[in-house]
Amino acid sequence: MKVKVFPTVSSLPPDETADQTAVVIDVLRATSTITTALANGARAILPVVTPEEAFEQVAELPAGAVLLGGERRSVRIEGFHLGNSPLDYTQARVSGKTIVFTTTNGTRAIRRAAGAGHLLVTSFLNVSAVAARALELGKDLTILCAGTHDRFSLEDTACAGALVSALSGPDIDLELCDLATVARLLYESYRGRLAELLHLSAHGQNLVKLGLSDDLVFCAQADSLAIVPEFIDGEIRLAGAYHSAHDLA
Amino acid sequence: MKVKVFPTVSSLPPDETADQTAVVIDVLRATSTITTALANGARAILPVVTPEEAFEQVAELPAGAVLLGGERRSVRIEGFHLGNSPLDYTQARVSGKTIVFTTTNGTRAIRRAAGAGHLLVTSFLNVSAVAARALELGKDLTILCAGTHDRFSLEDTACAGALVSALSGPDIDLELCDLATVARLLYESYRGRLAELLHLSAHGQNLVKLGLSDDLVFCAQADSLAIVPEFIDGEIRLAGAYHSAHDLA
Repeated sequence: MKVKVFPTVSSLPPDETADQTAVVIDVLRATSTITTALANGARAILPVVTPEEAFEQVAELPAGAVLLGGERRSVRIEGFHLGNSPLDYTQARVSGKTIVFTTTNGTRAIRRAAGAGHLLVTSFLNVSAVAARALELGKDLTILCAGTHDRFSLEDTACAGALVSALSGPDIDLELCDLATVARLLYESYRGRLAELLHLSAHGQNLVKLGLSDDLVFCAQADSLAIVPEFIDGEIRLAGAYHSAHDLA
Repeated sequence: MKVKVFPTVSSLPPDETADQTAVVIDVLRATSTITTALANGARAILPVVTPEEAFEQVAELPAGAVLLGGERRSVRIEGFHLGNSPLDYTQARVSGKTIVFTTTNGTRAIRRAAGAGHLLVTSFLNVSAVAARALELGKDLTILCAGTHDRFSLEDTACAGALVSALSGPDIDLELCDLATVARLLYESYRGRLAELLHLSAHGQNLVKLGLSDDLVFCAQADSLAIVPEFIDGEIRLAGAYHSAHDLA
């Protein structure tokens, strides 16, 4: 299995993902939040690129069954029900709901990779489950890190490395691109210290300044959720539950 | 001193380097070759983007004092005197000459960063000398890795990490971007094993297939040359000799 990692949304060439499995990562916080919302019973997440698009989508959906979620400059958008903190997405709030969702980097990344054969969403919370699903699909893998404003990000690259690490095994032949090699090295250097890594990252430091350090601690919980969010027909839903990559390997 | 690392030519925003020191890295092989040519007495290197531009430049220079050097697809360009192997650039061939030079990634990177206050060129061969010069200049630092066809490259990122490592010291306050942190970790994981790192890289593997593994061994010689190539008025010349970053720190 060939594994390529791209560090930012715009670094992914168009059509790169055709007939492959793509995995999108935005640890702080879009993909951690999407994963949490689905684990807490949200029916689906509809990723959209702009707040305007979000309001248009909501107008077309049955009232009461839909929530608006997302951020700009890390803060909840005016008129939205929920921000981009995974801690907002409790079972009480999101169970059974469809969430129209827009964030600065994460939802752009999902739309960028939408041409993939399968498009999965991961974070530290569910990386082993996504690795298991990727092995089951058996296609070459393109991992797209959302990055932060088109800059390389420590936390997304480390999560890409956690995915590469979870794919690795004695019977698995992985052909890694240079960034996949570096990502695995980064992850393995911080294994067991992911909260420290998130606090070291530029984006993490920004969130701490905004009083959001609880989010960093939450997003650092490796493999707390054994679920696989998948983008199908314009929305992200649960594809299934997998307990570890090697259940299926 | 703020230190930012950009992984590829196109990832560097225009004007990012204004009033800063920029350092361009293309370990395999443009910046290793430029450094070697200047160490062996070349008068100057004129980096140009296309072979056509190279032929035009040569026509304007006195015959006998100028050589054409560079590659496309890692191979010497037809009609050029020299390829892109540092081993081609011996004292006997290059001493006193001006070299009009074009490569796939490296010369594009130099032109991309040309708006910097000072633009230095480094490789593993001279990284401590360049670190010393950057400390002497005292400005924020932008390190531009050429990458390979606009993809992240292991060897350029590791060399960026070697530069960050050479800048570090008890009295130096460095503020690292996320990629600078990762680059330093990568370098420190391979310190003393740089030839192994170059053989692991995608571009290194390509050069080995072309029979150029001697180039990898040559380019892995850390700090064999205490010189600082600098881009001034359209050409790269020697800015001075420095023996270690902490001579000047």
